[in-house]
Amino acid sequence: MITFFYALNTCARASHIALEEAGATYELRRVDFASAEQTKPDYLKVNPKGRVPALVTERGVLTETPAILAYIAQRYSAARLAPLDDAFAFAELQAFNAYLCSTVHVAHAHGRRCYRWADEPQAHEAMRRKVPQSVGACFELIERELFRGPWVMGEDYTVADPYLFTLAGWLEGDGVDPRSFPRVLDHRRRMAERAAVKRALERERAA
Amino acid sequence: MITFFYALNTCARASHIALEEAGATYELRRVDFASAEQTKPDYLKVNPKGRVPALVTERGVLTETPAILAYIAQRYSAARLAPLDDAFAFAELQAFNAYLCSTVHVAHAHGRRCYRWADEPQAHEAMRRKVPQSVGACFELIERELFRGPWVMGEDYTVADPYLFTLAGWLEGDGVDPRSFPRVLDHRRRMAERAAVKRALERERAA
Repeated sequence: MITFFYALNTCARASHIALEEAGATYELRRVDFASAEQTKPDYLKVNPKGRVPALVTERGVLTETPAILAYIAQRYSAARLAPLDDAFAFAELQAFNAYLCSTVHVAHAHGRRCYRWADEPQAHEAMRRKVPQSVGACFELIERELFRGPWVMGEDYTVADPYLFTLAGWLEGDGVDPRSFPRVLDHRRRMAERAAVKRALERERAA
Repeated sequence: MITFFYALNTCARASHIALEEAGATYELRRVDFASAEQTKPDYLKVNPKGRVPALVTERGVLTETPAILAYIAQRYSAARLAPLDDAFAFAELQAFNAYLCSTVHVAHAHGRRCYRWADEPQAHEAMRRKVPQSVGACFELIERELFRGPWVMGEDYTVADPYLFTLAGWLEGDGVDPRSFPRVLDHRRRMAERAAVKRALERERAA
């Protein structure tokens, strides 16, 4: 049995949806960010980084969304969530996920977690002001260059799809109009209709 | 034939070392950041993100260090640069690399590329002031929790080693005393002595 630690409305949603798409059996554990549970000793034993997601397996704990997504695709290979027998296509998928974690998520985080990178309130305000532009530029690149359609990587649905869906869900909160990105917006709508996505969102709220 | 685009003293060094460790045959192309070559149309045709590294293969272009590192390990599997037949161990390696790209490199980048996340010079100064602390906290976690020894992932040398070596090379420039992290420092010394690392550094300077 595996256990998946998440917090509401975080990037953990991507891996959670992937678990549902894979048909995995897992226990779901909510980490309460409102009470800063992620900074408490019990959770730091699970993930010393004090972040979500964390996937506790029989062999140990895995962290970091791109690593967990590739692991889910490999562990539940029958679900065909990644091109596992094609190193180049797998690398393209991984490059997309790496861009989301190192650039898109980071641009977004300057609105909510800006204290990570500066101490002064004025600097925090400056960072928050820039979020619509920096996040918007990321989605401009995704819309124009990276997104293939109908799914992120083309004809085949992969673990990149729940990841893009999760981050595209933050656009309005980041002050970016999603209508500027019609292909991303259409993808978001189609994702929201998938049974696995509905199950994941329901379980997130219920847990 | 593959072509590897890099710039001096950037994270591209990690993939470059991995190519040397793999015994790959490749053409090396320097992108001149001093003249902003990465923002010019010719390079944007290679990588529309305007960043390095980029690996041009027979099938197309790959970007993003963690994706390129995993690809090199898979393409040149005889070099045994990743535990390719063990999904969990591979995910642990990928989690380490994802932490470097999404957290450690990002903390460092606030010293050099802070204009990405705010427009005001005062905010830039605030970000630069925080770099020693935020980068230091990352290496504290690596030293205490993540680094296994003698190599990053334990007994076996993997593509995580050139990646850590590359980012650990920035410590002094970030105002962090590497002597606070004796295991990382010892790793850096041992890495610098490897033939593949020496070749990569020499080729970087000569190209």
